[in-house]
Amino acid sequence: MDVTADRAEADCEAVSEMLSRVGDKWTIQVVVSLRSGSQRFNAIKRKVDGISQQMLIRTLKALERDGMVKRTVRHSAPPQVEYALTPLGLSLSQTVRHLADWVVTHREKIERNRLQYDIHKV
Amino acid sequence: MDVTADRAEADCEAVSEMLSRVGDKWTIQVVVSLRSGSQRFNAIKRKVDGISQQMLIRTLKALERDGMVKRTVRHSAPPQVEYALTPLGLSLSQTVRHLADWVVTHREKIERNRLQYDIHKV
Repeated sequence: MDVTADRAEADCEAVSEMLSRVGDKWTIQVVVSLRSGSQRFNAIKRKVDGISQQMLIRTLKALERDGMVKRTVRHSAPPQVEYALTPLGLSLSQTVRHLADWVVTHREKIERNRLQYDIHKV
Repeated sequence: MDVTADRAEADCEAVSEMLSRVGDKWTIQVVVSLRSGSQRFNAIKRKVDGISQQMLIRTLKALERDGMVKRTVRHSAPPQVEYALTPLGLSLSQTVRHLADWVVTHREKIERNRLQYDIHKV
């Protein structure tokens, strides 16, 4: 296999991995809730309906590890921890938004297509 | 919960479900290989390196069910089956392309971020 094919394959793997990362239901909602600016843990938890403490910790850690979210500790008493999108995270959120808009626009059509397919195949 | 919140939640679920559908490694590669026009099964199989017969059948069926791919049987001897992107599939592929371009542009930075995060957390 030549270098270009190797590179294309690595890119494809990366795209696929990133799509399934950002495609995670909780990740999308956390990123969306951070679009309005830096937030404390409990404020995010209130905005993201139904997320557990454990799942929010895990989602924020994965985003921090990617460099999409920055965690800041304010040395007050008690210490306050805030989370904010980095420029990288904000840029991703804008790109994902286009795809999300596409899905919102077309989801009814896709659901109708699936229903029709299932009726014809039974 | 009010109607708007219900709707937003349904949209979020749909976006998440669709991202993980299109985020599938094989789905991306099959859609990309169909961008150049209608193809026979074996031609797609040759283009999508490493895909099994079974996985290609499953991927094409899911895309057909969504209405992204159209399957056409030509009544020759032997009958020929061709697959092509529908306008809906083509439109999705263009939107996914922007996200894919974003990932290709930023993947090295994300990999560096992860490495740095892991070094500091050990």
